[in-house]
Amino acid sequence: MSSAISPLAPDRFPALPPIGGVTCRVARARYKEWDRTDLTFITLDEGTSVAGVTTQSKCPSPEVEWCRKALVLGRARALVVNAGNSNAFTGNRGREAVEAIAARVAGALACEPSDVFVASTGVIGVPLPIDRAEAGLDAAFAAQPCDWEAAAATIMTTDTFPKAAVTTAMVHGKTVTITGIIKGSGMIAPDMATMLGFVFTDAAVSPDFLSEALRSANRDSFSCITVDSDTSTSDTVLAFATGKAGNTQLEDDESDGADAFRAALTDLCTQLAQLVVRDGEGASKFITVTVEGGENDDSARRVAMSIANSPLVKTAIAGEDANWGRVVMAVGKAGEPAERDRLAIRFGATQVARDGLAVEGYDETPVAEHLKGSEVEIGVDLGLGDGRATVWTCDLTHGYISINADYRS
Amino acid sequence: MSSAISPLAPDRFPALPPIGGVTCRVARARYKEWDRTDLTFITLDEGTSVAGVTTQSKCPSPEVEWCRKALVLGRARALVVNAGNSNAFTGNRGREAVEAIAARVAGALACEPSDVFVASTGVIGVPLPIDRAEAGLDAAFAAQPCDWEAAAATIMTTDTFPKAAVTTAMVHGKTVTITGIIKGSGMIAPDMATMLGFVFTDAAVSPDFLSEALRSANRDSFSCITVDSDTSTSDTVLAFATGKAGNTQLEDDESDGADAFRAALTDLCTQLAQLVVRDGEGASKFITVTVEGGENDDSARRVAMSIANSPLVKTAIAGEDANWGRVVMAVGKAGEPAERDRLAIRFGATQVARDGLAVEGYDETPVAEHLKGSEVEIGVDLGLGDGRATVWTCDLTHGYISINADYRS
Repeated sequence: MSSAISPLAPDRFPALPPIGGVTCRVARARYKEWDRTDLTFITLDEGTSVAGVTTQSKCPSPEVEWCRKALVLGRARALVVNAGNSNAFTGNRGREAVEAIAARVAGALACEPSDVFVASTGVIGVPLPIDRAEAGLDAAFAAQPCDWEAAAATIMTTDTFPKAAVTTAMVHGKTVTITGIIKGSGMIAPDMATMLGFVFTDAAVSPDFLSEALRSANRDSFSCITVDSDTSTSDTVLAFATGKAGNTQLEDDESDGADAFRAALTDLCTQLAQLVVRDGEGASKFITVTVEGGENDDSARRVAMSIANSPLVKTAIAGEDANWGRVVMAVGKAGEPAERDRLAIRFGATQVARDGLAVEGYDETPVAEHLKGSEVEIGVDLGLGDGRATVWTCDLTHGYISINADYRS
Repeated sequence: MSSAISPLAPDRFPALPPIGGVTCRVARARYKEWDRTDLTFITLDEGTSVAGVTTQSKCPSPEVEWCRKALVLGRARALVVNAGNSNAFTGNRGREAVEAIAARVAGALACEPSDVFVASTGVIGVPLPIDRAEAGLDAAFAAQPCDWEAAAATIMTTDTFPKAAVTTAMVHGKTVTITGIIKGSGMIAPDMATMLGFVFTDAAVSPDFLSEALRSANRDSFSCITVDSDTSTSDTVLAFATGKAGNTQLEDDESDGADAFRAALTDLCTQLAQLVVRDGEGASKFITVTVEGGENDDSARRVAMSIANSPLVKTAIAGEDANWGRVVMAVGKAGEPAERDRLAIRFGATQVARDGLAVEGYDETPVAEHLKGSEVEIGVDLGLGDGRATVWTCDLTHGYISINADYRS
């Protein structure tokens, strides 16, 4: 497997300020035969709210089940992330490992086990070794605090670069900061990629409103990306709000600054989601698919995802081929309202089909130029209504096959 | 693009008897710059019943729309198949081409245009040239009849081998023969593969019962295959029954021999469907996915298709990797009832996971042997009910990327 950094990676890790009430530490649990930090331990001051969204998979990992239960209570004191072993599909022994981690952290922090959130990523079907987790935690308890970059690097598996983003919002006269780290879309030998995302803010936000805002941000960010249409058993996004910024707590949409916080959270989640696509397995091009004119936004999104998930569209982009026939195909198979004779398609700024027909004699030069770049836009107008959606994906290349097929477990 | 014959192709074209009332001819319409026959013209004696199933695409070709209208009448005198141009997404000019073909054949045979069925496969977005179609038809009218192999080869686009099958049934004391030809899953430069299948029988069958039997056969055959989850705008299967076998006409399920006819038709369609998978783009392995223990058959089929469509499962098989974690993932993402802790998975005859856990110390030798072969079986037991389904697919290899990305239109 190649460890070359994705050609779509940003130039550098962003400058992230500390978030009041959040302390990161990392340690070596040695979940695999490697010499790197693979356990991230983040403590959160008392009074931290938490919200989360987890995989739609019907076969979730025990970590996902644990988080779902703990999220109901809405408060958090710690987050533990294990890299190298997803602990998924491991039955009772997997559940016991999660419980052991939560218990050990609860003992160290004098909090409830349900205040401890756990996420794991890596090989499926191998129970997380409890002894290594415990030794790793003990090392983390004793470690010096680290910066965000170290934490973002420690949650990586076969990601090719650490991923983080930051934004701010003005909430009732106070500046609040929202920071996030994420991993995903690199291959986790010998299993599937998992997206784990963690968002931290010093804003004071009630668990209910945080949950509402995260769900809505998720709908427009993490739910709008796809690399290969496969869904992990472990996908998890958690948001923690420590309240250290000193704003009056955001309780609902009527709270002063609620809109600004929502917008900032959506912006941050969108940045993080796009970073995952930029590290898509084998990706050589970042593709933005925008669908307009749908019957409604949901319908437009399903059409956009049908395009973004189509192997034939993704291989065409890899081949720098303005193959709009494959876009027609993907619109047609989405199962959403569409009328062939109203359909319009563009690549970049150039309209290539309109009213169900190729635009006669359209200029192919700017289209070819556009497809040679590493950022490709596909625009579709269904011509039916006001529904609109944008989703992000990457192309499908030999690199994807090499990462996922040429490797033998 | 490679023209090497798929490694999964059968040894030879099957011996197909003539079907009474069916006459095949082929001609050169030169829809592309090639020197091969690309127009197939099949005449059917008076009294022939017809039934069909067509693509679910919301952007169907004008041929598909034409066939849907003509199918309502239930009778047929001719079939024209064009290879090299799908005529899809071509607006009024595409519709005019289909009407011109039907009119010319109706004139030659002294039948109604609605007795003439038309199907086309090839490039999207270029109106089928009417002058070439008409010249091709005139050449076909004057040509000598040909055998099934010539017809099967003429409907090919980038298929790597001609595909056909035959079976018989005993209907009310008479032997009836059912024959079919099919094309699909080779790439149609520069557009997507299209599946066109044509079934011919000398049985006497009413249009209504033929339609009913074809729908049911389709559900268990063509609807159970996938190469890359993409759906063509032109997929069409038509069945023609000439009645020359002399059996009392099959009217409904109460007719003597109806069960035997249904079973034979399903068998024939299954053979044809599997041939398409065997010519899947880049395929190196033929994969049978069987799901048992679903809540019902439909649910089991959706889980099986989720596995068969998963790029991660398909690349694992290409890499001969017994990566059952990816099968768990695909079960989980199907959205159908599934309980992780009841799930069992096998490769070939070897159980690798049971009760939501890896089978401890299972023998990897027979699994590795099985995956080295060109015929791979994945079995899943959901442990919930009696629902059962089998679907067929192929692996996802560098060949698929080469065919679909390395080519520039």
